[in-house]
Amino acid sequence: MSSNDTSAATTIARAAKAAFEASQLVPSSERVRALSEIRKELENAKAEILDANRRDLQAAQVEVDAGRMSTSLLKRLDLTKEDKWDSMLQGVTDVAELPDPTGNVTYASELDDDLELYRVTCPIGVLLVIFEARPEVVVNIAALAIKSGNAAVLKGGKESNETAQLLSKAIQTALAKTSIPSAYIQAIQTRAEVSALLELDQYIDLVIPRGSNSLVRNIQNNTRIPVMGHADGLCHVYLDESADADKAVRVVVDSKTDYPAACNAAETLVVHESLLQTVWPKVAQALLDADVQLLCDPATLSALLPSAPSKLSTLVRASQPADYATEHLSLTLSVLAVPSLSVAISHINSHSSHHTESIVTEDQAAASTFCRGVDSAGTFVNASTRFADGFRYGFGTEVGISTGRIHARGPVGLEGLVIYKYMLRSKGESGHIVGDFGTGPGRKQYKHANIDAATVPF
Amino acid sequence: MSSNDTSAATTIARAAKAAFEASQLVPSSERVRALSEIRKELENAKAEILDANRRDLQAAQVEVDAGRMSTSLLKRLDLTKEDKWDSMLQGVTDVAELPDPTGNVTYASELDDDLELYRVTCPIGVLLVIFEARPEVVVNIAALAIKSGNAAVLKGGKESNETAQLLSKAIQTALAKTSIPSAYIQAIQTRAEVSALLELDQYIDLVIPRGSNSLVRNIQNNTRIPVMGHADGLCHVYLDESADADKAVRVVVDSKTDYPAACNAAETLVVHESLLQTVWPKVAQALLDADVQLLCDPATLSALLPSAPSKLSTLVRASQPADYATEHLSLTLSVLAVPSLSVAISHINSHSSHHTESIVTEDQAAASTFCRGVDSAGTFVNASTRFADGFRYGFGTEVGISTGRIHARGPVGLEGLVIYKYMLRSKGESGHIVGDFGTGPGRKQYKHANIDAATVPF
Repeated sequence: MSSNDTSAATTIARAAKAAFEASQLVPSSERVRALSEIRKELENAKAEILDANRRDLQAAQVEVDAGRMSTSLLKRLDLTKEDKWDSMLQGVTDVAELPDPTGNVTYASELDDDLELYRVTCPIGVLLVIFEARPEVVVNIAALAIKSGNAAVLKGGKESNETAQLLSKAIQTALAKTSIPSAYIQAIQTRAEVSALLELDQYIDLVIPRGSNSLVRNIQNNTRIPVMGHADGLCHVYLDESADADKAVRVVVDSKTDYPAACNAAETLVVHESLLQTVWPKVAQALLDADVQLLCDPATLSALLPSAPSKLSTLVRASQPADYATEHLSLTLSVLAVPSLSVAISHINSHSSHHTESIVTEDQAAASTFCRGVDSAGTFVNASTRFADGFRYGFGTEVGISTGRIHARGPVGLEGLVIYKYMLRSKGESGHIVGDFGTGPGRKQYKHANIDAATVPF
Repeated sequence: MSSNDTSAATTIARAAKAAFEASQLVPSSERVRALSEIRKELENAKAEILDANRRDLQAAQVEVDAGRMSTSLLKRLDLTKEDKWDSMLQGVTDVAELPDPTGNVTYASELDDDLELYRVTCPIGVLLVIFEARPEVVVNIAALAIKSGNAAVLKGGKESNETAQLLSKAIQTALAKTSIPSAYIQAIQTRAEVSALLELDQYIDLVIPRGSNSLVRNIQNNTRIPVMGHADGLCHVYLDESADADKAVRVVVDSKTDYPAACNAAETLVVHESLLQTVWPKVAQALLDADVQLLCDPATLSALLPSAPSKLSTLVRASQPADYATEHLSLTLSVLAVPSLSVAISHINSHSSHHTESIVTEDQAAASTFCRGVDSAGTFVNASTRFADGFRYGFGTEVGISTGRIHARGPVGLEGLVIYKYMLRSKGESGHIVGDFGTGPGRKQYKHANIDAATVPF
């Protein structure tokens, strides 16, 4: 990258950090008011924004016609489609109404008479959020960042540049009506700026990539800043020895077909070998009826031959080892037979992306073993992998889904955008010093008495 | 690094991950039993271990005599010093008796009739812990890892190699008497192995460096694996306009002199300019009486001239800008006057390592502003920065102190070694699928009813 990019990125990152620091003294009620101003400003600027969106769509149509862009990407750009505009605005209000994730005391202890310790939730700092195509993400992410007290630098896909610029402008206009600094939410346009920002770990505290596997991997490989998200969603369903056939059909079909392009869709079905002649053919038939292509190992393949459904020749074929490490993201499912629950768990632990896995079983002990033995963010019993989602979990909204193992795992709500700090207050006559404590004569002992407090009392 | 190192490291890391995965089905009571076996085995092997420690000490003495090692490093190697051996053993028992950080439900919700979601704490995975000199850290860290359910690979300083090897051997002998795999705790000897392990983010989940600034920075710059800890401890004390003189003297002297080499010792004193002729000379005199060297800006320096204490010439000098970015780790303190609380906060936010800062004040509003406006892991009022410590905070023990902004911040107890997973159970007649929910006719709505549960009921 050029020194210009570095210098521009440094200016942006510094301004974001300064805005974050200044915002720490702004009460959280002002952040809620900012969200309501943003909604108003978006309504005011609606015509202008939708004009810009039309220009983005026209440019995209040229790309589609020239075969350089997919129709599905073009559709994702469209802010006028169905109720997209209204639900974007509603999203701002919904986030505003969620409980404040900051200022909550999660540990409080009286260390000594008149010496009180409070662990209190607070924002992380400056977020760098990188996403593709859908321009309304600018508004979603800005709302989440503001609600949680974090500053954010946003980079959308170049296809939605005109729309994103006007959305950001509306957000900044709204922020100018509050005591939150307007550099709190900044939008950037170029990849070179992103590359430069990924170097600035003194200003940027967390990177949240939302997009393709290659986008996420590329970012993970090019920064020392912590990255929250997931590159892959290689989820499994396991049909246990005791699986109920109807549950197996419902859970497998929903996990695979409800939304095959989602990260929480199933990619591999693991079948206990005792089911090969019983439950498996029923599940296979239901999948074939839903036009799912089955990539089968020898045992599951040969079990289908006697019944030989008409679609067998086109939709069923023998699997390759690589199929079990592939996120199909389409109506394709890898299938494998195993001799035991423990082999199923081993296969899953070594092939899964540690996102979400489900067991179909009538056996409580097997359910318990699976949920503990499978090392994934979500371990489910008789339920579709598609339930792995912030809204379905009850978080109101979702920052993303993390397959990381620190800070936040699985669907991440607003809680994933906060950390905590420790506030310690001496109310004593002479302040508190550690030299007064210890084992010698006349030394004090720590008291460590629980304090019941929901918020910091000073 | 050579391909041999890579291959050896891969074998170690794979074995650690396999041991971790296998351990997920071992009840946590077995982890407590393992700690008691470790204590017994250390007692059995005491003579042998102390022999090895004597050999390490003899080799170190040669280095000290040749001027290649400091006496203080040699002293840290000595396991026979005072009650070090006994307190190492007691530490194992103490950790065993701490509350189990795993298996605790932190969120539970009924998503639908008979569809229950539990967020339950669980270990992170495989820890790589790198430390210097003190051999007893092998035992401390092994105890923390086992208690929290994490596998660990440990690398100590080469000076304590013989001792560390026998301590590890005792731990593995003890683990062999339990159902926890013995590869759960592995010790490695070479830096080349560490370098190779830092590449293996598919097996190693968290790196915990405990040692010098350069050790920590070097690791942070050479791995994609998350790193928990701190490189610097550049802590500040701020004397507010309303500071009480006696509290100021006590808090500043304790923060600086109680243990100057600690990361939570104060390195810079920030003084409100209204105190230059009142509180500051008293604080300065107390610091000089404690042999603290003062590096003063022009305002704080000239304020000392009229009183001109006898030690002024040797212990007081004019500061350079770099002094305010220096972690002295000795009886040296940088001093700066500021015109206001907000300038103090700005100076601290831009110079601090975000570890711990303290304000001395009689003004509640100033205390509140400081605690919120200063962006550090600990913000204290009328209390020494030295209180920033896991034991003092009441965590029983401490994994380290984190200046990171995700996962864990400040002194980290056992809670910092766990994350969570989501377990979802359908108890319904036909399993649960997302296709049944939605806005269309006959579709179900999510219930999101709180479940009161401390542990997962299956």
